[in-house]
Amino acid sequence: MWLRVSCSLAFDIETPTPFILMLRPRSGAEQWIELDEFKISLNVPIIEFTNHYGNLCQRFVAPTGSFSIYTTSDVKTSEFIDVDFDATFVEVQNLPSDILCYLLPSRYCESDRFNDLANSITANQQPGYQQVFAIKEWLKTNISYIPGSSDYPISATEVNYKRSGVCRDLSHLGIALCRSLSIPARMVVGYLHELYPMDMHAWFEAYIGGRWYTFDATQTGQKGGYVSVGYGLDAADVAIFNQFGPVAHSLQQSITVTEIKK
Amino acid sequence: MWLRVSCSLAFDIETPTPFILMLRPRSGAEQWIELDEFKISLNVPIIEFTNHYGNLCQRFVAPTGSFSIYTTSDVKTSEFIDVDFDATFVEVQNLPSDILCYLLPSRYCESDRFNDLANSITANQQPGYQQVFAIKEWLKTNISYIPGSSDYPISATEVNYKRSGVCRDLSHLGIALCRSLSIPARMVVGYLHELYPMDMHAWFEAYIGGRWYTFDATQTGQKGGYVSVGYGLDAADVAIFNQFGPVAHSLQQSITVTEIKK
Amino acid sequence: MWLRVSCSLAFDIETPTPFILMLRPRSGAEQWIELDEFKISLNVPIIEFTNHYGNLCQRFVAPTGSFSIYTTSDVKTSEFIDVDFDATFVEVQNLPSDILCYLLPSRYCESDRFNDLANSITANQQPGYQQVFAIKEWLKTNISYIPGSSDYPISATEVNYKRSGVCRDLSHLGIALCRSLSIPARMVVGYLHELYPMDMHAWFEAYIGGRWYTFDATQTGQKGGYVSVGYGLDAADVAIFNQFGPVAHSLQQSITVTEIKK
Amino acid sequence: MWLRVSCSLAFDIETPTPFILMLRPRSGAEQWIELDEFKISLNVPIIEFTNHYGNLCQRFVAPTGSFSIYTTSDVKTSEFIDVDFDATFVEVQNLPSDILCYLLPSRYCESDRFNDLANSITANQQPGYQQVFAIKEWLKTNISYIPGSSDYPISATEVNYKRSGVCRDLSHLGIALCRSLSIPARMVVGYLHELYPMDMHAWFEAYIGGRWYTFDATQTGQKGGYVSVGYGLDAADVAIFNQFGPVAHSLQQSITVTEIKK
Repeated sequence: MWLRVSCSLAFDIETPTPFILMLRPRSGAEQWIELDEFKISLNVPIIEFTNHYGNLCQRFVAPTGSFSIYTTSDVKTSEFIDVDFDATFVEVQNLPSDILCYLLPSRYCESDRFNDLANSITANQQPGYQQVFAIKEWLKTNISYIPGSSDYPISATEVNYKRSGVCRDLSHLGIALCRSLSIPARMVVGYLHELYPMDMHAWFEAYIGGRWYTFDATQTGQKGGYVSVGYGLDAADVAIFNQFGPVAHSLQQSITVTEIKK
Repeated sequence: MWLRVSCSLAFDIETPTPFILMLRPRSGAEQWIELDEFKISLNVPIIEFTNHYGNLCQRFVAPTGSFSIYTTSDVKTSEFIDVDFDATFVEVQNLPSDILCYLLPSRYCESDRFNDLANSITANQQPGYQQVFAIKEWLKTNISYIPGSSDYPISATEVNYKRSGVCRDLSHLGIALCRSLSIPARMVVGYLHELYPMDMHAWFEAYIGGRWYTFDATQTGQKGGYVSVGYGLDAADVAIFNQFGPVAHSLQQSITVTEIKK
Repeated sequence: MWLRVSCSLAFDIETPTPFILMLRPRSGAEQWIELDEFKISLNVPIIEFTNHYGNLCQRFVAPTGSFSIYTTSDVKTSEFIDVDFDATFVEVQNLPSDILCYLLPSRYCESDRFNDLANSITANQQPGYQQVFAIKEWLKTNISYIPGSSDYPISATEVNYKRSGVCRDLSHLGIALCRSLSIPARMVVGYLHELYPMDMHAWFEAYIGGRWYTFDATQTGQKGGYVSVGYGLDAADVAIFNQFGPVAHSLQQSITVTEIKK
Repeated sequence: MWLRVSCSLAFDIETPTPFILMLRPRSGAEQWIELDEFKISLNVPIIEFTNHYGNLCQRFVAPTGSFSIYTTSDVKTSEFIDVDFDATFVEVQNLPSDILCYLLPSRYCESDRFNDLANSITANQQPGYQQVFAIKEWLKTNISYIPGSSDYPISATEVNYKRSGVCRDLSHLGIALCRSLSIPARMVVGYLHELYPMDMHAWFEAYIGGRWYTFDATQTGQKGGYVSVGYGLDAADVAIFNQFGPVAHSLQQSITVTEIKK
């Protein structure tokens, strides 16, 4: 299916402020970006670079005053996520070296503290896809998904205690549970077709059977329509914008996702 | 200045053929891609990856039959190339590690064979920008630029013997001469505003005074309007498409570069 | 000065267990490894790879039973750490792209929560080295260094609450405070001459004035004798060994550091 | 088998000269470096870095005068090279992205000019290992291996014309032939047990069936005892030392390889 996605951001800055954006989706195994538009209403140098996790990031210093950012892309993505209950656990010794970092605990995914819970959730499952599927189902049943209920990231431990959270929070707990079973897991931020209320979305991927699979504890069935914008260990890595210095005022954010015909 | 650039390619394939494209310009220190469109008239998976030199490449297998590729971008670039006669030679020991590969000889730039010529061309020049400028001027005077005069890359040695060549050939000789003086140099393929006859273009960059500078022995003065699409050691690295297997028939290629207002 | 460092580890494994070691120090700007010995008493394939942070890591699967690891190196390092109170803060927009990851919060360094404390500690300091020096001094005064007082990493928030910790804990808090001021900071694990009691050690580095400087809140003055073995965002990245699966029994660890003449 | 390898170099320099060495073998899938010693008789800063191809390189500036370099390693390697006549050709579309660069022509391997010869040599072979084996056998039969017969690298085209060469030359032609068949191939420089006369050696590897295999047209049978020191596209990438500026005088080079018991 073809989706047209867009993100509008507006800032009002009191002092010159360095920004790093992560808003340009990349073509990859799962999606093809046929059209990509990226407007920043500033006449300053903008440098684009690729970070550790393969994301395209944009750096610039915003001068005092207001400015806006607008990105839109036409993306070919799948109508359904890939599902394979037979995809097997990859032994640590057989993982590609550049996947190993997704086994470690990170800022919001204290995987070192979730081994018992993960074992109990996946007790009767085959190692691999079935384990992660059980984790996702457990999240759906046990952690209430309440969009808009928090403004800043909380960690897997806090999510597990609070028993509710936004998409980012459920992903953190899912990732921590996977990693505690030696299953590589990473955070994805991006767009999702028909998300309600519409916003940037977060989900997680687990590395099973030699590739990454999508898991989203906020959704039902195998519905697809995902557009990935950034990958990382957790929310610390995938902010769509990072600013350094005083917090910007009057931020507005508007997201759209529309199915189109091509 | 804002340029709208485009490239159309048409192929007719007799047998399923793997392709690697290098046709998506990247935003960087010198240019900003505000709009980027990339159409391939095939319904096959296309994987994008970043290669050694930071280029975005696209891989796919074209099935038997005909297909087309169309890319267009709106790019902000400079009206004039940067010129700095005071930019100094960077001693090898002070070069960043990832620049060192641009000192070595490569397929079409046998820099190991040009030390005498380079010394003679730059005899009275200050080390750095002035040396490379002298090399560029020498190329303009001594190697006739004849667009369309060759179909496949020839090496610096061959260009020096032949005394004429296309943009790619002049760049190869320029790069070989720079490297023989321990000045890192790389090939760039891309678009150039008002190039006549219009086509994909090639020029070279030299690393002086801590950054890359543009040199183009086919042009006069400080005229800008360059849009970089790919970087590499020489033409072997920056083909806008590589195909593997039997050569494709009926190739058509159409390039446009238009100044636009934004 | 020349140091001979060594690390002995002994394991007893109940089930085949994948290990990843980070025990081979690398030559770099600050140290030169003249001799390097690395013995593992197993006849299994061992693969070495370089991770995200430039560390040499070794992977293998240990079979059931006991085995030992022994590494020793002769290293040239400085007798005194570099100190430069004039080294200035690097604005975020001027940081190299590959340094930016050291600004983000990580598993044990919740830098997003320490801005007020960092500002209060560094209130009257010039941006840059003087700020980090003030942080280090504050750690020395306010957080008791108690070697051997904890077995597993705790985070900066926990360290700040507990008011005491091992070398790793003080580093976590130091890193979190630096990052909250937009100063890149990273964890280092390695050896330290005359550490008492002798053990593997941890300290932190801050990126100021275009390079990394060493800071160690557990030591006094400008004493050097550091040998770096691994770098990372925090303790999650720099374990000298990671094992996957059931915890190994009967672990023994012995560390030596001796000054030698060359 | 365990080998103790060593390399001694002596230089006499007329003017301060930047050097880049590639003399530290790395542990990897095929070899384990248990002991590694690296002495440079200079009191200057030496920086080690990892280059594009994963090699450990050492940079320094040698002052005027004489100095020596001595490296030795104890390495576990195989007594026999791996041979698998069933290892199959990997279609270009299935190659890992970071392998693709080994398909391109390079300074000394003009693979773009060898398609006809490669097809004729491998006419009746199964795609994959059998093709490369046929290339190696053809090299043994058709290109005389004359150790010490040349001092500087010549390219595949020149080797093919000259019909004789040193180990490096045979490798260049072998690599060019492989690449012309879309088989990734790379140059390896290193040590070989029982090489006569003893010297640094060069051979090539081809990527077949998902891994690299060793091929050496200068040797007979499946004899092993290889210790890899550097990898690259061709001899331009794997010089054990590169110097920049006037050529050094009085170079001496001494190589030893001895089997040891461990």
